[in-house]
Amino acid sequence: MDEASRLVSDFFLTMIKHHGLDHLAICVPSTDDALKIWRDRLGFPVVCSEVVNGGVVRLTHLDLGNTHLQLVEPLTPDHPLQAWLAKNGPGLHHFCFKVDNVGRAHADLLAAGLAAATPPPHQGTQGKRALFLAKAATQNVQVEITGA
Amino acid sequence: MDEASRLVSDFFLTMIKHHGLDHLAICVPSTDDALKIWRDRLGFPVVCSEVVNGGVVRLTHLDLGNTHLQLVEPLTPDHPLQAWLAKNGPGLHHFCFKVDNVGRAHADLLAAGLAAATPPPHQGTQGKRALFLAKAATQNVQVEITGA
Repeated sequence: MDEASRLVSDFFLTMIKHHGLDHLAICVPSTDDALKIWRDRLGFPVVCSEVVNGGVVRLTHLDLGNTHLQLVEPLTPDHPLQAWLAKNGPGLHHFCFKVDNVGRAHADLLAAGLAAATPPPHQGTQGKRALFLAKAATQNVQVEITGA
Repeated sequence: MDEASRLVSDFFLTMIKHHGLDHLAICVPSTDDALKIWRDRLGFPVVCSEVVNGGVVRLTHLDLGNTHLQLVEPLTPDHPLQAWLAKNGPGLHHFCFKVDNVGRAHADLLAAGLAAATPPPHQGTQGKRALFLAKAATQNVQVEITGA
């Protein structure tokens, strides 16, 4: 990395404070079937499993040691992730950074030109809030932030 | 998790020793363009950038704090990832676990019914070796292991 890039990088690093990767997420049609692989064959311990956002999605976290694997199962026939699954099948869906406060982090991201796709924040696991960034700014890669 | 599942989980956890998530990977058509986003806008510091496997692919790691983001750029027109990019565009491609030794870990995975897709191991970053598991066993999610 040259000096100019390092300065730019340091500037945004100061602006967007995060505490590492909270989770990477796989969208699945069935949590039970997915657990037979990720818990039972690969051996990742289940941390939590919750139905959130008014009953439309089940989020299950498995411990990877330094971060979590999140299984995302849409529970309603009209959930947008049903169309995603129909197109892609089970697969990697997004990754998510830990922040102290979703609202403050979003303000920082806006200042860096990275808008949220889905304000206001939605419900994450274990009482946390979460927010997806607009995919257009990140090469169509879905990035989420989560925190208080 | 019920007791039977926990016993199964503990059994495989003992068999497949890993040291957490080494990286999650995004396949991109241009490392330089991707760095403008992930390094310059989101502020993740570059750890290393290497052309490996006989010049066919560039791997660039950015530090996410507790793990790395890997940018994967195919460099030859006939590289299999060119077809992947043509179909999917830039996007999440795989995630990779740290193991002590790729050969031993592969033997453990085979014993758990998880074959490698691409034996023998290929070149990873910073002198490490790596191996992709067969996607059929993991719901078409591409999982890699890397180590000595």
